[in-house]
Amino acid sequence: MPERGERPGEFGMIARYLRPLADDPGAFGLTDDAALLRPEPGFDLVLTKDMVAAGVHFFPDDPPESIARKALRVNLSDLAAKGAAPIGYLLGLALPADWTEDWMAAFSAGLAEDQQRYGIPLLGGDTVKSPDGLMLSVTALGQVPAGGIVRRAGASAGDVIVVSGTIGDAALGLRLRLGTLDGSAAGEGAAHLLDRYLHPQPRLGLAEAVRRFATASLDISDGLIGDLSHVTRTSGVSALVEAERIPLSDAARALMAADPTVLASVLTGGDDYEILTTMPADRFADYEAAAARAGISVARIGRIVEGEGAPTVIDAAGEEITLGRASHDHF
Amino acid sequence: MPERGERPGEFGMIARYLRPLADDPGAFGLTDDAALLRPEPGFDLVLTKDMVAAGVHFFPDDPPESIARKALRVNLSDLAAKGAAPIGYLLGLALPADWTEDWMAAFSAGLAEDQQRYGIPLLGGDTVKSPDGLMLSVTALGQVPAGGIVRRAGASAGDVIVVSGTIGDAALGLRLRLGTLDGSAAGEGAAHLLDRYLHPQPRLGLAEAVRRFATASLDISDGLIGDLSHVTRTSGVSALVEAERIPLSDAARALMAADPTVLASVLTGGDDYEILTTMPADRFADYEAAAARAGISVARIGRIVEGEGAPTVIDAAGEEITLGRASHDHF
Repeated sequence: MPERGERPGEFGMIARYLRPLADDPGAFGLTDDAALLRPEPGFDLVLTKDMVAAGVHFFPDDPPESIARKALRVNLSDLAAKGAAPIGYLLGLALPADWTEDWMAAFSAGLAEDQQRYGIPLLGGDTVKSPDGLMLSVTALGQVPAGGIVRRAGASAGDVIVVSGTIGDAALGLRLRLGTLDGSAAGEGAAHLLDRYLHPQPRLGLAEAVRRFATASLDISDGLIGDLSHVTRTSGVSALVEAERIPLSDAARALMAADPTVLASVLTGGDDYEILTTMPADRFADYEAAAARAGISVARIGRIVEGEGAPTVIDAAGEEITLGRASHDHF
Repeated sequence: MPERGERPGEFGMIARYLRPLADDPGAFGLTDDAALLRPEPGFDLVLTKDMVAAGVHFFPDDPPESIARKALRVNLSDLAAKGAAPIGYLLGLALPADWTEDWMAAFSAGLAEDQQRYGIPLLGGDTVKSPDGLMLSVTALGQVPAGGIVRRAGASAGDVIVVSGTIGDAALGLRLRLGTLDGSAAGEGAAHLLDRYLHPQPRLGLAEAVRRFATASLDISDGLIGDLSHVTRTSGVSALVEAERIPLSDAARALMAADPTVLASVLTGGDDYEILTTMPADRFADYEAAAARAGISVARIGRIVEGEGAPTVIDAAGEEITLGRASHDHF
């Protein structure tokens, strides 16, 4: 095994930084070709895989802990949206040649904290040399009681459209980061927006309520209207969204008052990782109460209607708002 | 969704090239955030994830069908080594900005053929923009009867060491490709070596026999001696390998006669994806017969001994062969 200076090679790096994360017996201490999972009888497995690349999904100079968290959390968010509880994950790590031990120590510490926070062990994975920048590929496994998965398809005309948390913060944080938006109107709230971009909050606390009450569900990663379109297209329906009902943070509200382009970012920007669900209107109160018990706010923003076109967004006066493009494009 | 010239965007590309590969009901036609797998009662799941990157694990100008096959097969090889039957896979695809429809059509055709050949459906995954070269991350899922996984740990002193197929071909093929070896002594056999590098053969036909007879097992991806070291280290034993017993292709044998550096490539080169197993000597005949029924040759190359050091390799005269380094380094 070649050593570069003081730095450990592949197996030394895995032993030092990743093996401590893999204390599940099925991980075999990362010393085998594969991991073992004995499924719990009566449950279905839910499998999701999101890749993130430096310069595309995060900035190469983001804190390593934050990169680690984002890679894991965007996958946990998918599990939450499907109503699933996390079981474990596999980590694919393509490291550029100039990785340092300090970077790996911080990166693995970020994973360790989130594993603890969300109750998900590292089961296995692969570490390779990246010819260029850092790339991470996480496969997360979750479980739902058999038949319990909540799909994108399932919304019916008349259902209300519900989102968790506040919408648009991450897209505004990214614009602040890129310098394409003046954040002065938000004052100290700008830090909140930057943090929302850097640290998605997977809404695992909503998973059970999603299973109990939602007819369709996904997480908002590509943008509110773009993701809502995924629900309407797969469900064979359309949607009407009332813009003034979309829950905003104080910081986003302050920026919107100062700059009318903020509304477009709220409607079409990505990376919120909030949960969009649909459900019959008479279930909303119970969903809201269950969400509140998990410390998560939810809000009705519109309703599913018959039809096949893209969702319609109306302003407070009932006038349709025209969108330049429906979603953020990570591709 | 932005369109670049005539080329489809992300969702169009997925619909055109990847959705046809995802006919398993749990894949939801690649229209959901996650895939669903209902585990078969009485089986354990075996999970493996191997990433491959252009310029590291394959050449950027390799045929797209071959890149697709390699990415999938290196994972299937891990399942075979563990005694597992394939269930499905998730594909992470980081595409450089200059991908073409011709490339994607050939790439997806390669996947389609191998899905058919090995009986493994595409369940889900993620497609992202690569800031640089192509990178693929496959997570493969397999199953073994509960408790049936065969680990690296498990070899005991006295066990014989057995390998499938022939060893070193892929490493020699890579050297021919890189121009660091004169292939003229192999004549037309050089094409065989190049093909062995480009198209690993996952030994899924051996999986059941591995489960029935092997005490330890892995696939040879890092090199014969390096991978044998993984077995001996995790099993707390050492090993003695008789070099002249290592099965060679006619092409490798011809090259070895012409160039003595070929032996080192055979012993330490990577990418063979043959199966190395250990077992009590009295099981070998049954293992060999089961392998023959699957059309796969197997050979005894040495034995497990007590001790803790690296494996010892001896030549026909019983003299120890000194190795410069034990394994090929993909990292």
